[in-house]
Amino acid sequence: MKILLTNDDGIYAEGLYALYKKLSKNFDVTVCAPEVEQSAIGHAITMRRPLRVQKANGNAKLSGYAVNGTPADCVKIAVRTLLKKKPDLVISGINHGPNLGADVLYSGTVSAAAEGAILGIPSIAVSLATYQNHDFRGASEIMLKLAKLVQKTGLPNGMLLNVNVPAVPMSKIRGILATKQGRSLYQENFVKRTDPRGRMYYWLTGKVKWLKKPKDSDIKAIEEKYVSVTPLQFDLTAYDFMPKLKEILGK
Amino acid sequence: MKILLTNDDGIYAEGLYALYKKLSKNFDVTVCAPEVEQSAIGHAITMRRPLRVQKANGNAKLSGYAVNGTPADCVKIAVRTLLKKKPDLVISGINHGPNLGADVLYSGTVSAAAEGAILGIPSIAVSLATYQNHDFRGASEIMLKLAKLVQKTGLPNGMLLNVNVPAVPMSKIRGILATKQGRSLYQENFVKRTDPRGRMYYWLTGKVKWLKKPKDSDIKAIEEKYVSVTPLQFDLTAYDFMPKLKEILGK
Repeated sequence: MKILLTNDDGIYAEGLYALYKKLSKNFDVTVCAPEVEQSAIGHAITMRRPLRVQKANGNAKLSGYAVNGTPADCVKIAVRTLLKKKPDLVISGINHGPNLGADVLYSGTVSAAAEGAILGIPSIAVSLATYQNHDFRGASEIMLKLAKLVQKTGLPNGMLLNVNVPAVPMSKIRGILATKQGRSLYQENFVKRTDPRGRMYYWLTGKVKWLKKPKDSDIKAIEEKYVSVTPLQFDLTAYDFMPKLKEILGK
Repeated sequence: MKILLTNDDGIYAEGLYALYKKLSKNFDVTVCAPEVEQSAIGHAITMRRPLRVQKANGNAKLSGYAVNGTPADCVKIAVRTLLKKKPDLVISGINHGPNLGADVLYSGTVSAAAEGAILGIPSIAVSLATYQNHDFRGASEIMLKLAKLVQKTGLPNGMLLNVNVPAVPMSKIRGILATKQGRSLYQENFVKRTDPRGRMYYWLTGKVKWLKKPKDSDIKAIEEKYVSVTPLQFDLTAYDFMPKLKEILGK
C-alpha cells in the first residue's frame, strides 16, 4: 500500500517522524509536508504566489518533499504532480495537540486529510490529545492498526477518519470508539500590547469551552482514555432547516 | 440592527464597498476586513504572530477597521475586542467570484460567516457568481432584502446562509431558491516554471468539475439565473457511516 504522509506542524515535527518510522516498516510511505509549522491554517490553499518544493536529500531521515505552502497544498501538489502514482491512503499527523469538536474547522491536520478525501483517496487525520508530552509511540501503534483496517475495508468516497489518541501509555488506552464531533467554542481573548516603537498589537489567546459532551462524542472518548475515531464528510448543507428556509424565502 | 461587514477580497474591494453603501442607509454597519486579499484562505486563524488593526480614518469611505489577518481573524477580533456591542448580523462579501459546491471549504468569505455562526451570531456569506463583470448592484439589492428577512426570522444557532447571486441585471434574476451544496471537485494542474535564478516553482491552476448537479443544488440555481441560498452547518460527522464504522472497529 502506498501512503502519502503529511501534517501541519511541518516536516521537522516529531509526530510526523514517529509515524513515518512506524508506517514505513510496513508500507511504501512518501512524505510531503509544509516546510514550516502551519497550525490553525484551516483549508487554506496558495494561489497568489508560486509554490517551491524541496526534495529531502541524502541527509534527511525521511523520504519526501518539503513545500512552502499549507497542508492542503502539500496533498494537492503531491497527488497531482510529485507522486508517480495516486496514493492508496493519505495520513495527516501525528498532530501535537487535540483536534476535537470545532477544532476540525480550523485544523490544518484535518484539512490535509479533507483534501485527500476530496481527491477520492481514503484519508485519516491523527492527533495526540495533549500539548505537553511528546510520546508518540502509542498513537503510532494505533495508526498502524487503523491503516491496516482501512486497507482492508476502504472508506466511502469523500469521507475521512478524524482520530484522536489520549496522551497515556499504550497499556492504559481502553479501546477504540466510533464517535461524533462534539460541540465546542473558543472563548477568545485578545491580549493588547505595545511594541518597542509604541504601536499597538494584539495576541490571540483563548480557552476551549464545551457546549455539550454527549456520551458518544470525541471529547468524551478522550476524557475516558479511549481512542476517538470520528467519520467526517463535507456536505455542510443543513438539511433539517430546508423546509423552514423555503418558508422564509416565500417558496 | 448592528451589522458587522467583512470579506476575503480585502477592505479596498469593490464588492465590500457596494454592499456597505447599500446596507448603511438602513442599518448601523461596521466594517472589519483584511487589509489585503485573502481568497482561498479557508478558516485560517492567526496564532503565531500578533495582529495589527488600522482604524479607517477621515479619508476612508468606510467606517471600520483593517486587520493584517484572515477573514476569520477579522470576525473574532471585531466581536471580542473592537466592537462595543455584539453585532446582530455578520455579513461577509460581496465576494467577486462564486462560492458553490466544494468552494465553501476553501472560501475565506464563507469562513468569516462561519466564524460569526460559531460565535452565535446570525451570519450570511454572499458572492457574485462571476470573475468577469463588477456590477454588484443586483447582489447588494438582494442582500438588503435577505438582511431584513433574517432580522425578522433569525437563524438557528451555529447556522449560516451561503448566498450566490447570478451575474445578470436585477431584472433578469428569476427568484430566490433554498438550495443544497452541490458536489464539485477541482481538477488541479501545477504549472512548472523556472525563475530568473534557474530555480523551479509551481503555480496552482485548475478547472472546477461538477460531479452532480441535482435540481435543488446551488450550481443549478445559479445556472438558471436564480439566487441560491444554502443553509450551512458545521457538524461534519458522517452519521450514516456510524454503524459501519462501529462494525469495522469491532464494536
